[in-house]
Amino acid sequence: MLKLKRLLSEVESKQLDAVAVFSPSNVLYLTSSDAPSAVLVFRSGEVISLAPRLEYLRALEEVSVGEVYTFSRVGELSEYEKAIPGDVYEAIAAVVRERGARRVGVAGASLETRQKLAEKLGVELTDFSKELQRLRRVKDEEELKVMRNAVALAEEAMRLAIDSLERGVTELEVLARVLSFLARRGSGLPFTPIIAFGDHSAHPHAKPQGRALREGDLVKIDLGARVDGYCSDITRTLVFGKPSPKQERLLRAVRRAQEAAIEAVRSGAPAKDVYGKAYSALKEEGLSAYFNHGLGHGVGVDIHEPPALNAESEEFLLAGDVVTIEPGVYLAGYGGVRIEDMVLVLEDGHECLTHFAKDPVI
Amino acid sequence: MLKLKRLLSEVESKQLDAVAVFSPSNVLYLTSSDAPSAVLVFRSGEVISLAPRLEYLRALEEVSVGEVYTFSRVGELSEYEKAIPGDVYEAIAAVVRERGARRVGVAGASLETRQKLAEKLGVELTDFSKELQRLRRVKDEEELKVMRNAVALAEEAMRLAIDSLERGVTELEVLARVLSFLARRGSGLPFTPIIAFGDHSAHPHAKPQGRALREGDLVKIDLGARVDGYCSDITRTLVFGKPSPKQERLLRAVRRAQEAAIEAVRSGAPAKDVYGKAYSALKEEGLSAYFNHGLGHGVGVDIHEPPALNAESEEFLLAGDVVTIEPGVYLAGYGGVRIEDMVLVLEDGHECLTHFAKDPVI
Repeated sequence: MLKLKRLLSEVESKQLDAVAVFSPSNVLYLTSSDAPSAVLVFRSGEVISLAPRLEYLRALEEVSVGEVYTFSRVGELSEYEKAIPGDVYEAIAAVVRERGARRVGVAGASLETRQKLAEKLGVELTDFSKELQRLRRVKDEEELKVMRNAVALAEEAMRLAIDSLERGVTELEVLARVLSFLARRGSGLPFTPIIAFGDHSAHPHAKPQGRALREGDLVKIDLGARVDGYCSDITRTLVFGKPSPKQERLLRAVRRAQEAAIEAVRSGAPAKDVYGKAYSALKEEGLSAYFNHGLGHGVGVDIHEPPALNAESEEFLLAGDVVTIEPGVYLAGYGGVRIEDMVLVLEDGHECLTHFAKDPVI
Repeated sequence: MLKLKRLLSEVESKQLDAVAVFSPSNVLYLTSSDAPSAVLVFRSGEVISLAPRLEYLRALEEVSVGEVYTFSRVGELSEYEKAIPGDVYEAIAAVVRERGARRVGVAGASLETRQKLAEKLGVELTDFSKELQRLRRVKDEEELKVMRNAVALAEEAMRLAIDSLERGVTELEVLARVLSFLARRGSGLPFTPIIAFGDHSAHPHAKPQGRALREGDLVKIDLGARVDGYCSDITRTLVFGKPSPKQERLLRAVRRAQEAAIEAVRSGAPAKDVYGKAYSALKEEGLSAYFNHGLGHGVGVDIHEPPALNAESEEFLLAGDVVTIEPGVYLAGYGGVRIEDMVLVLEDGHECLTHFAKDPVI
């Protein structure tokens, strides 16, 4: 497993004996399952997942690496449960002590969790969150293969959503069709799809409502899929019927801003400069005051993960990052336009993972 | 607004000038919207919501009380944005100082958030989380009306799911129908419904898969709706076809355990004693080792909220609590049974909010 190999090399270079990894997305990243509460990775390569009793069977089926135990403070257990006594912190401490690990890293823990673990372990913990975050940012070939599948499924859902547009259809009806499609295909839902017609599209995160589609409405559709743990994310905006000159101007401006930003994507580029390209393009059109969110975010096992691409970001793009590029402009009472694609950062440029037409035909 | 009145009386009795409330569910509870990042409630009754720019228009539409501002560290804003300069902590500090508030409470904040806010405010913060949590536990008549609607919708979805059961249908197909139904009815999704056939039902939190329904399968369905911000949660287990003696024994045992627990629900009852009733009933049947999770949880704007009903709970039920009572037994490789209802705690007893037949007919 490529990911584990890369993790172990970080563990070694930080001279740690073990790392305790928390948070559903970190756990999913390492084990292919979000059932465990924590995963322990030892320098020896041994991996131990700890799942609560009610997630234990699922963890046994899903976890792709190492051994799985449950933990329990209650005495009585069934014959099939391999359990370590105590809560998750006590269970981690027991496993760590049994293996004589002294230098222990921790990733993905809240301050509260970290304090509890340090107390049970009786040792200082080394923060390993940045290292794990960096590993997660750089997608390997196995991950990219899965992500391409997640993109393809989201693009099928986008096609279905657009094909559902007809006079009088409601945002909720289009949502229902998208959810039904994704469920049948076994996709998880990284977020509730945004389907917004007319002035409702001025809400960047519109929640679908009973609004019926009318001739001349802007239609904003933002959706994603989750395949084998990995997310995808795509947005298209179009006009139902003949676009007005104002709508055409907004669509063109956002499209140009997106092109300018994508053009700047390459390894080493400061994230805020990539944001700046889109911002400047919109400023030239007098629309930058209506670009009221960041340009994009990393995507992986989390739908939003580092790096953030915005005006205040201090991050640099890395080869292997998969980021969204999604400028938008939103006019209160009128409507909004956003175009979003997923882009893989390469050493000397980029590759668009999404291929859906930017001006989709209904 | 009843909730605000109750909050203000707590603010007064703790001699606070203001409370800063964080977390989407706390914010939703107070404002009917999860768009703001934080809400400030002053002893005077003034309420100020602070929403990030990209949620500002949605907050303006949804927030049911007081005023809404956005906040921004970037200079340029559109003409419709009423903004306070800075990040959310700086914006809170500015609003609090302007009103001369000195004794400030905070609820729903992580340690990190609390530290940042204390730094910007330059005062010690008083923890108000327990007070708010207690307010949220005790549902008033307005809240109960909404929750009854959420229950009714979940029961309709349960009926639809059961009506979808036919030989060969897959878990994912039933899921797709449920999601489509709930979306069309404008319901949010408090969690992904659990639809599990045969031995897959042994996973308490099974994720629906492509498994096709066979004669004699146990079928476990756990789903909920979200109406006007409030959640519902119900589980039924049945057999597709004629139940075997073993299946009948499991169904009967869980049903009796649930009845015993519901019988014990009243204001003042220790949560762990209510759990104990179900546990003891299952122990008599030799099944307690397979009851591998808590008995239930509070439900409100969060699908899981206090009180927790389990072996280690130190909470007492309060009149106005709405809790789930959901014992289950899970046999690895065979299947699982869970029956879950929502119960309103009354001074001298309880009222079942769910009315769906416990032995549903296909």
